[in-house]
Formats: sequence, C-alpha cells, structure tokens
Amino acid sequence: MEPGLHSRPAEPGRCVSGPPGDGSAFPVDLPSGAGAQPGGLPGTVAAVLPAGGCGERMGVRTPKQFCRLLERPLISYTLQALERVCWIKDIVVTVTGENMEAMRSILQRYGHKRISLAEAGATRHRSIFNGLKALAEDQPDCKLTKPEVVIIHDAVRPFVEEDILLRVVIAAKEHGAAGAIRPLVSTVISPFADGCLDHSLDRAKYRASEMPQAFLFDVIYEAYQQCSDYDLEFGTECLQLALKYCHRKAKLIEGPPDLWKVTYKQDLYAAESMIKEKISQEICVVMNTKEEESIGRLLEEVLRNELNVHCLDFTLVSLTQKLESLMWIRDLAKEVKERNILLSGLLLNSSQDEQKLQESLGQGAAIIAALVKERNSAFAGQVLVA
Amino acid sequence: MEPGLHSRPAEPGRCVSGPPGDGSAFPVDLPSGAGAQPGGLPGTVAAVLPAGGCGERMGVRTPKQFCRLLERPLISYTLQALERVCWIKDIVVTVTGENMEAMRSILQRYGHKRISLAEAGATRHRSIFNGLKALAEDQPDCKLTKPEVVIIHDAVRPFVEEDILLRVVIAAKEHGAAGAIRPLVSTVISPFADGCLDHSLDRAKYRASEMPQAFLFDVIYEAYQQCSDYDLEFGTECLQLALKYCHRKAKLIEGPPDLWKVTYKQDLYAAESMIKEKISQEICVVMNTKEEESIGRLLEEVLRNELNVHCLDFTLVSLTQKLESLMWIRDLAKEVKERNILLSGLLLNSSQDEQKLQESLGQGAAIIAALVKERNSAFAGQVLVA
Repeated sequence: MEPGLHSRPAEPGRCVSGPPGDGSAFPVDLPSGAGAQPGGLPGTVAAVLPAGGCGERMGVRTPKQFCRLLERPLISYTLQALERVCWIKDIVVTVTGENMEAMRSILQRYGHKRISLAEAGATRHRSIFNGLKALAEDQPDCKLTKPEVVIIHDAVRPFVEEDILLRVVIAAKEHGAAGAIRPLVSTVISPFADGCLDHSLDRAKYRASEMPQAFLFDVIYEAYQQCSDYDLEFGTECLQLALKYCHRKAKLIEGPPDLWKVTYKQDLYAAESMIKEKISQEICVVMNTKEEESIGRLLEEVLRNELNVHCLDFTLVSLTQKLESLMWIRDLAKEVKERNILLSGLLLNSSQDEQKLQESLGQGAAIIAALVKERNSAFAGQVLVA
Repeated sequence: MEPGLHSRPAEPGRCVSGPPGDGSAFPVDLPSGAGAQPGGLPGTVAAVLPAGGCGERMGVRTPKQFCRLLERPLISYTLQALERVCWIKDIVVTVTGENMEAMRSILQRYGHKRISLAEAGATRHRSIFNGLKALAEDQPDCKLTKPEVVIIHDAVRPFVEEDILLRVVIAAKEHGAAGAIRPLVSTVISPFADGCLDHSLDRAKYRASEMPQAFLFDVIYEAYQQCSDYDLEFGTECLQLALKYCHRKAKLIEGPPDLWKVTYKQDLYAAESMIKEKISQEICVVMNTKEEESIGRLLEEVLRNELNVHCLDFTLVSLTQKLESLMWIRDLAKEVKERNILLSGLLLNSSQDEQKLQESLGQGAAIIAALVKERNSAFAGQVLVA
C-alpha cells in the first residue's frame, strides 16, 4: 500500500488547496463553487475550537470530543479537517485543565501542527472568549497574530469541508458575522409550564444554527468584551452576541448535512461509519500482476462494483509455491499494524470452471470490500478463502 | 445457535409484555416505570404509520423507509418494534400505490402480523388521514375496529420502545393528545428574507417535537375532518391540528434520544450500528465443552470483556481429528446462511505456553466480537486463526 494515497487515521492528511501560505492571503486557486471574489478575501484567518464540554448528553464518561473512532479521538479528525485548509493560519483549541495533558499527547500522537492550546472556561461562551483572548494582540502574553477573520467551530463536527469554511469566511468579511444553517428536521414547539403544548412553530420559517461560524475578529472580540455575565453563563449562540452587542446581522449560509454535531451515542456510530466510508474511498490495493495476470484483472473488475475506489493494485502470490505464506502474512501483519496498516491475505480459487471462478471472484471481492469498509483490526493477519 | 434467544433481522421478535390479548385491555403486568395507572388505560389502541415519503433528503433513490440495514428494510424494524407491544391491536401502514407490492412482500418475507395497508396521500397529513379513515367505523369498507386511542408514529424511527408508547397513550387518554419531545440540539434561528439573522430563539424555552404521538381517536379524526386544504398540504404537526381544531392542548412527554428520525445518510449508518449493537447483546454462541473444557472456560472469560452478551455457548471441535472441518464449515455456512445465520470457524492455538495461550485467547475473543458486532456476511464460512 502506498502511504501517500491514504487518509489513514494516524495521518493529518494533505492540504487541500496547495502548500501552506504565509498566512497573508488565500492561495490563488480557490475551490470552484465557493463563490469567492478576489476583493472579498480577508488578510489572515484563524480558528477557535471550544473543546471544554463534558459530554453529559452522550451517556458516557469520556467527553464526546475525546471518544475514539477507529481508535483515534474525535477531535483529532476535526483538527485534521481544519489543518487541510492551508489558509487557516492558527487554530486555538480550548481545553479544561484536567484534559490539557491528554490533548497535548493527542497533538503529538497524530502529528497536528498549527494548534495552540488555551484553557477552557466553565461555559461554551467563556471557552470561546478565552480562545479569542489568545489571538488578541492586546493581551500581554499573546504569542499569536491577531487575525482579520476568526472561524468558530465545534470539536464534535469532524466533517467540515473547505468549501463551507470559505463561504462563511467571505460572508463574515462582508457582513461582520456569518454562520452555517440547516433546515429543521423536527417541528419546534413551545411548551407551557404545565408541560402541555402552547404552540408549534412553522418549520419553514426557522432554521437550525450550525457550525462553522465566522466573524471579523474585532466584531466578535468586542461583543465578548461587552457581554453580560448572564450571556457568558447561559448563552449558546455567537451570532446572537454579534447582533446584540455590535449590531451585526449575521449572513446565514446553507451548509451540507455532514455538518451535524456529534451529540448522542448514535452520532458516534454515524461518525465512525462516515470515516470508514471516506477511508474506503481512498484505498489503494497493491497488486503485482506478473503471475496470474488475468485473475487480477477479473478480480479488479468485480471489486469495482463493491468498492468506490480511486485506484486498485494487488500483490498476487501463488500459494502452491509458498505454503509458508500463512505464517508470513501473520508476521508481516503484526509488523505493519504498528504503522496503522491492516494487512490480510486472500486465497482465491482460480478454477478452470467458469462458474466456479466467477463465484470465487465475487466472494473475494465481497471479502475485500468488507475488510476495507469495516476496517476492523481483529481480521489483520488472517488468510481468508474465496 | 438457539433461534429463540436471538432477535435476528428475519424474525419479528417476541411480544414484550406477554401473549397478544383480545385487544380489549392492557395485559396485567405493565412495565415498571411506565407511570401507568389502572384507571387511565384506554380500551383499544391502534397505530398509524405513514410511509409514503420519497426520502428526497437522503440523497438516495430508495425512499428511506425502504433502505436496507443488514439486508432488511428499515420499516420492517419499526413494525417489529410496534408488534412487540401486544396491546397495540392494529397497525395501519400507508404506502404509495407504486410501493404497495413491495410493502406486501416485506410483510410476508419478515412475517409481520397485525398490519393493514392503506394508500398514502400526497402529503404526510393526507397519508395519516387515510390511515385514520381505515380505522374509522363510519367508512363503508372499514375492516378494522375503531380504537379508543390511536398512536401515530414514523416508519423511520425504528427504536421506539414500549415504555414511551405506553406513556404517550396514557397521556392521550387523559388530555386527548400527547407527543414525545426532545431537547433542541442546535439553536433555532429566524432568518430575514435577505438571508441574514433576524433573531435566535432561547434554546431552553423550546423543544423538538418527535414521535410517537397518541390521540383519542375521535379527537384526531375530527381534527382531520375539519382540517383546511392548506393544513393538509403544508402542515406537519398533528399536535397542532388537535389544538387548532379540537382545542386539545397536547401533553408533552420527554422521550429517549433513540427516538431520532432517520433523515440523512449518516442516520442510516447510525441506525445500522444501533441494530448491530442490539443483536450482539442478544447473541448466543454454542459451545460443547466435552473436550478441551478448560480452553472453553478461558475463552468465555476473555470474551465477556469484549461482548456484553447474555449467555455464551460454543461448539469446540479438535481440528487435528477433523482436517476436513474447513470444507465442512464452508458447506454448513452456506446452508445456514439461508436461514440468516452467519457461521464462521475459529482455530484456537491451545499452546502449553501460558503467554501464547493468553494471546491466542485474546485474539480469538477479538475475532468473535468483530464477527458478532459487524455481522458482515462476507465472513460466513471462513475459518479464522487465533
């Protein structure tokens, strides 16, 4: 397997839009469809990621941003998504004191760059405020550059793409504030104090406010500085603060459904499956077609029906010559597992009978697809038979 | 494997609260914690399940209620959940004409009972109204008994439990209308026509209206009969109809997070994982401990750390005596797969070396757990090595 073609959990992934710039401007080739106009691009962009939550809604002890998906903490996927966007210069993550060491070791273990840590506050708004302070030039111990625009995102929304980030940033530059929205899935209702229905809202007239959001740094920083203790304690919506304290009506931007927030146990399951799907779309299977060339071609054909892969490449070895293959695969699998590569063997019955051969190829393709999609390390080193 | 101990996809599952009654009363032993009071129990209960949606939000062609999870359509899991509740006498499912045949074959294939089909309308409200008409006695072709209370649920909420159904039914009996609610996950905002923020709602003062809901049949049927064409066309909230046309303020009941509606692709992933988890909690592994008794006991011990299972039972066979086991397992697996049983073999290295034995047991347990949790049919018939 060629490491460069994978987006494996242990790798932060490549930059989407070219090499990291000096932070003073967007790269020239912006993604198409982003609605970018050269005049609208801000000078520098930073991001603040509040990660101080305790995940009480999940029903598990580990705060949800630290829950492991394919053995890697959720927050690491979110950081990877932000790091892939080269024009985000600094990323400030706010973490509670008790999780600071764990967070540092996550940054090191998964090779995250451009991340600064700040102490989380007792509430979401206090945590964001602390993150902004770390970016503000008027703070005595500030080591970062004050950005023109700041993105605020959630640690538990790992599937944020460059396109939506760019759209909110450009809109924030123009309007002072901008945020992603989604249609409501359920009707929203207002209960009386007695627990009975008062009225229900017209679903078409409302939207769910999601993340990312972006702000002119000076706008949101001023809003937080003027903010009441009540807002800091009980508020949840940054767009509302920009409206209340700086009279900036945020531009609302329709985002994709993948922006959803990992909140409950079922969301963790969904996120893990989405990650598996993304990985399996970028898989590369190594194939050496010197021997048994036709079998390789046939298997490739069948496999393309099962997996939506970019490229296919196998190593075919003939088992009759290598009965020791079984032990060789087990040993090799153990070795490469350390580097997060899951290796399994597949014995293909290359029968002369056309029907049996097709059956065997079909089953082989199903097994490869299952191994790639499930990505379960329990099957590493196994030799499967088709 | 003992069929009775499983809740396999192909089986509708057992009744939760005893054998089906005659429909005239609840069974005597109601679940604890349901808040049931003997005086509050309605005479007969039926359910209407609108399933006419086309799933345009999912981004796939198949309407989401017919999407397959573990090779079984989503709606079949929801029907199973309702059928497990013995005091629900009739279940009316509304389906579009073009899906009627497919629905009939689902009912037959998965052995669903107590289901009647009615034609779906062009909108959700019209579909529910058609379902109610099928239950109303004043309709000329009515074959069902008019219930005292009717539950309205969604085909795409498969994890509904008896407890919440009972609580909404009892509340509906008292208040005329009742529905499950959940806290809002995202802040709800109101946009201006220009796409900018007008105001955001105080998240603490609102709730998401979920399903199931329940109504005195006469209340909701009257509401639908009086309903304007505009409501039938654009409305989405049954509780609002009961309020508007029959002045019944619905009792709102906090439901569990599993009530969420399968709406987007990630929800399908989440639902499949939830189903896998439920199945793996009810698995039974057949074990014959006549030979190698101690290995069986040790494996059981290690496996209990990996799987939260109710009972464990293996069949241990000694491979040295049966080298033909490999083919035997493949053939047997093919046979039992027809009955939705996924059979795999596991070769355990029963080494005299204590450390090697423990390693082997650990890996064996991980493999069994992976097979049970993933439930991927591609691994049926394989012999895995630990």
